[in-house]
Amino acid sequence: MITPVPTKLIGPILIKAQTWEGEIEVPMATYETTLWPSTNRGAKISRLCGGITITLLGNCMTRSIVLQTSSTRRAAEILTLIKSDLFVIKNAISSTSRFCQFRELFAEIVGQNLYLRLSCFTGDAAGHNMTTKAADAVITALLQKFNDLSYGSISANLCVDKKVSSINGILGRGKHVIAEILIPRILCEKHLRTTPEQLRDLNVNKNLLGGILSGGVRSANAHYANMLLATYLATGQDAANIVEGSQGITHVTITAAGDCHFSVNLPNIIVGTVGNGKHHPEIIKHLQKMGCTPDAAHPGKSSEKLAEIIAATVLCGELSLLAAQTNRGELMRSHIAFER
Amino acid sequence: MITPVPTKLIGPILIKAQTWEGEIEVPMATYETTLWPSTNRGAKISRLCGGITITLLGNCMTRSIVLQTSSTRRAAEILTLIKSDLFVIKNAISSTSRFCQFRELFAEIVGQNLYLRLSCFTGDAAGHNMTTKAADAVITALLQKFNDLSYGSISANLCVDKKVSSINGILGRGKHVIAEILIPRILCEKHLRTTPEQLRDLNVNKNLLGGILSGGVRSANAHYANMLLATYLATGQDAANIVEGSQGITHVTITAAGDCHFSVNLPNIIVGTVGNGKHHPEIIKHLQKMGCTPDAAHPGKSSEKLAEIIAATVLCGELSLLAAQTNRGELMRSHIAFER
Amino acid sequence: MITPVPTKLIGPILIKAQTWEGEIEVPMATYETTLWPSTNRGAKISRLCGGITITLLGNCMTRSIVLQTSSTRRAAEILTLIKSDLFVIKNAISSTSRFCQFRELFAEIVGQNLYLRLSCFTGDAAGHNMTTKAADAVITALLQKFNDLSYGSISANLCVDKKVSSINGILGRGKHVIAEILIPRILCEKHLRTTPEQLRDLNVNKNLLGGILSGGVRSANAHYANMLLATYLATGQDAANIVEGSQGITHVTITAAGDCHFSVNLPNIIVGTVGNGKHHPEIIKHLQKMGCTPDAAHPGKSSEKLAEIIAATVLCGELSLLAAQTNRGELMRSHIAFER
Amino acid sequence: MITPVPTKLIGPILIKAQTWEGEIEVPMATYETTLWPSTNRGAKISRLCGGITITLLGNCMTRSIVLQTSSTRRAAEILTLIKSDLFVIKNAISSTSRFCQFRELFAEIVGQNLYLRLSCFTGDAAGHNMTTKAADAVITALLQKFNDLSYGSISANLCVDKKVSSINGILGRGKHVIAEILIPRILCEKHLRTTPEQLRDLNVNKNLLGGILSGGVRSANAHYANMLLATYLATGQDAANIVEGSQGITHVTITAAGDCHFSVNLPNIIVGTVGNGKHHPEIIKHLQKMGCTPDAAHPGKSSEKLAEIIAATVLCGELSLLAAQTNRGELMRSHIAFER
Repeated sequence: MITPVPTKLIGPILIKAQTWEGEIEVPMATYETTLWPSTNRGAKISRLCGGITITLLGNCMTRSIVLQTSSTRRAAEILTLIKSDLFVIKNAISSTSRFCQFRELFAEIVGQNLYLRLSCFTGDAAGHNMTTKAADAVITALLQKFNDLSYGSISANLCVDKKVSSINGILGRGKHVIAEILIPRILCEKHLRTTPEQLRDLNVNKNLLGGILSGGVRSANAHYANMLLATYLATGQDAANIVEGSQGITHVTITAAGDCHFSVNLPNIIVGTVGNGKHHPEIIKHLQKMGCTPDAAHPGKSSEKLAEIIAATVLCGELSLLAAQTNRGELMRSHIAFER
Repeated sequence: MITPVPTKLIGPILIKAQTWEGEIEVPMATYETTLWPSTNRGAKISRLCGGITITLLGNCMTRSIVLQTSSTRRAAEILTLIKSDLFVIKNAISSTSRFCQFRELFAEIVGQNLYLRLSCFTGDAAGHNMTTKAADAVITALLQKFNDLSYGSISANLCVDKKVSSINGILGRGKHVIAEILIPRILCEKHLRTTPEQLRDLNVNKNLLGGILSGGVRSANAHYANMLLATYLATGQDAANIVEGSQGITHVTITAAGDCHFSVNLPNIIVGTVGNGKHHPEIIKHLQKMGCTPDAAHPGKSSEKLAEIIAATVLCGELSLLAAQTNRGELMRSHIAFER
Repeated sequence: MITPVPTKLIGPILIKAQTWEGEIEVPMATYETTLWPSTNRGAKISRLCGGITITLLGNCMTRSIVLQTSSTRRAAEILTLIKSDLFVIKNAISSTSRFCQFRELFAEIVGQNLYLRLSCFTGDAAGHNMTTKAADAVITALLQKFNDLSYGSISANLCVDKKVSSINGILGRGKHVIAEILIPRILCEKHLRTTPEQLRDLNVNKNLLGGILSGGVRSANAHYANMLLATYLATGQDAANIVEGSQGITHVTITAAGDCHFSVNLPNIIVGTVGNGKHHPEIIKHLQKMGCTPDAAHPGKSSEKLAEIIAATVLCGELSLLAAQTNRGELMRSHIAFER
Repeated sequence: MITPVPTKLIGPILIKAQTWEGEIEVPMATYETTLWPSTNRGAKISRLCGGITITLLGNCMTRSIVLQTSSTRRAAEILTLIKSDLFVIKNAISSTSRFCQFRELFAEIVGQNLYLRLSCFTGDAAGHNMTTKAADAVITALLQKFNDLSYGSISANLCVDKKVSSINGILGRGKHVIAEILIPRILCEKHLRTTPEQLRDLNVNKNLLGGILSGGVRSANAHYANMLLATYLATGQDAANIVEGSQGITHVTITAAGDCHFSVNLPNIIVGTVGNGKHHPEIIKHLQKMGCTPDAAHPGKSSEKLAEIIAATVLCGELSLLAAQTNRGELMRSHIAFER
């Protein structure tokens, strides 16, 4: 049995990443069909303005475990020993997969609980299962080494998987990507029917102040989750990861020349090009069309490219919605027009 | 073009809501196919333990706007006038739809910005568009009444749509549902291979403490987002709303008799049985099978029933995963077994 | 034994509240003596610009309790019964003090826990003890009425006393005060050595974006806590309440005429003019000098006036520090100059 | 002019730190005089139970700056260059003081903003001014090196000074100290009039669940801020730092033998034994009495000892209040008794 989610290609979006450039058509699977024309308007801007510049700031996957001992004092001693010989963790992890490489350890202690957050490079896989397997091996290695440690949990909510947090934004999980575009004032007025000043002020009043008033954390955007969901579904991702993906910051400034600099900051894009969901023919077709097929010679590159394309797509959708909201009545009118 | 998401019926889940009881099979659409057997294990527990008790605590949809005036002092004066004559808002809203009823106003002022969060009853629709239309009418009415007010935005991030917040949990958005079950110790040991004490301690160490350490807000659970996404997709919902849906609290206690009381608290389930996405034949079939077809005589009842079923499904999946994580190695073993 | 905290009068600050206007000298007790000249610079601006406008948006004190019963279902039934007859709570509270008046009930349910947050008017007292006594009476009344309810705690961290939260900002605790000032561009340049644009941009980059990146909640300011602590200590307050007081939002905009509108939003100023700490001769003198002596004919007015004065003082200190930080090296130079 | 804050020695508290042990009397300056007997009850428990074990997990001071360039892409390039040659930062910092040593760099990019959070060791000073001076030197060095960087702000709210955040808990600021104690069941019942089970359940229902429901971040305790304020004032600290100090986690577990393990986790104690406020005779006397006088041969040790003593004091006050709240009516009765 399948559930068929309506899907359309939007774009092409003109993208300038650090290691590649090109015009890409992006599949979006969604029941909210007004998302297509809205994102398309942003894609048109990308082509008119010379492209969306993408900067990749990080790439890792994480899993956290919790182990227990007799006291905080003892947990701290064990932690010191673990940190002084990280090869125990490194080796345990690399024994589980030739793709999984240990990158970083973060630890917390509460009472007799020792929390360890393991950060790994997982090649072209999103890495949920790879890091679970890695964490399992780390538990075995540590319980063997410290006989006064006992098992707490294979997942300890510091990962953080599919839940809101601050730690994912601060320490990283998935691909951290920023997309930015410089929109000449005249294009802003003609194609977005707004001004750089209106966009900047709306971003402050709605995304920054509204977000702060709402009691959210590390989140200041209009609707990243919409574009993330549609692209995640169309590329076979574990789409519940839009939860942490939704936390990010839109920023708008005006250059000395009076043009609009618009950027979206996405610290937690969690996607892969291999693994669960990627073997369906439709998904394979979508990934191939975007040039996101794993290349054994460059592990991780295809999933990074996919994250970069998704960040550009988020920018297109975010820009278009914000522009519409600067004008009274425009959102209602366009919804009604497209839903007919 | 469609994206086909693999879908299976899980259950039946034995559910005891306030206004109905029954065994329900629930469709779950997901690429993460291990979610099916895991949720099914919880469903089996529901049948063995006399059912999952569902309590509906609230039902509304919200949209926030921001308007601007000359100063905080003036914004406060205008707010006082608005509050003293809520019929202006009430009438504006009811003029837009016979289903949309004004329920509550919440306001904030920052500088010259007046934020108004409008809470409405929206019948069997999730209500995104209905409340946008309502908010549009409120803006028109207020700008007409106060000529020193001007338009800020039709959506001001206090709604809060598809983003993390505290305000949605505190003031409500969507259906607020708690699902609870009493699991006799012997069933806990036999079918979940764990004890009430292990479940309670894991919940404290992982969901409560881990959640707090991660810097999240109003969020203490293992993976609500997974079950929400799968049921949202299979019933044609705007599934990006799993972002706010993911914020909720799992609680485990042990009764005087030594049995396990397990509950999931979901303040923000956002679902409808009419509107975008509900006209696809597969979706109609899924909704009908669960008895969630709108009944003109009882507006809102079918969407409340759907939310109640989803909350029970979340409990099944949450219980099963937590039970698995109390045992070292079990999660890995079951993943490997099911993915073969 | 006493600890002598260095204290100085700053100002006068020119203040325009809703019910009074005047120039007020404000005592600030602090070991950080650079706070005096800095706040004084803001006070000078207040006099040059025609005063700081104060708007009082709310005044209440809260205490939360937690009670327990057999299930969520039963807790919800009890809550419905409580809400249908609020006189039980109202009467219990008014029986404890002639000053304490019930205002609002907010409730949450998790598992078998029923959380009740009681909001009261407490006259000229900050109200910590008054609401504890009130909550104690409410517990007695409810346990008497519902024999399947049992005591959980007299304080349940939803109050929220001396801890960070979102609920205090959203639902109110203490005095909610906004202070605003309009600073002509020329005065901005001459006396603050900065421009409206520099202040606006610094506020966005530091207070809004920096605050969001830091993973805080409902907090976007430079140093409200400093001015709150100094004025709380000098007026005999329970100064640990600066924790929730520190959560607030600074906003800067530029008017059509090019002038600077600067405001500070303080949702949780917790002060009284009677009660613990107010009987010391120095404290009495400070309160009298500011005209904040309780007047039996107008209960609550003197503590509201005190909160209004404190909000104006916060604006002075916030404005001065932000102005200094717009200029490279100025903060260091002024620290060095004043600490000689 | 001075404000005299009532002060009393409480204890002695029996403390077992990693590098020293002893019974210490602790001065507490507060208008809330019931804090003395309450904390004293905890101190008595410390002596009866063999002492409070203290573990120091970290010690640093931080200041964040924001610099600006033309784009995110360029900001990322500059950041890479900075990270590849950290000596520029290290040398700039060590040029400002022989005590200030660079420890760690954390960076964020939003739009054209480059945020740098500098973490330093600051000897026996709390380090506010020392790190400001260090940050000033870093700005000078970086603007010199990169001519397309410009000054944004000397403080960028990622420090985070006197404001709520998640980053301070995750990355550290000030002294990170955990205090723990093992209380035999019989002493718990006799001297605290409660049981380990009551304490554990209250902690879950109030501190963990109540804290989560309130929409706070990284905060789960009853009243750390009270003990922090009283000890900060009595030792000449910049007491507005109780804001971040208030964020911490209390944890209660029951050992196999049925005894109570009680701990307080304080990630952000910000204290020094030299600097502003430390030259007053009363302050010097208080620091000397606790053996917290700077020793040139061991920079940082006296301020670490002070933080350790304060953490133990926090445990005493937290334990006593929680014990009181497990019993209906006890808090009211003790308040009334002590305030007579």
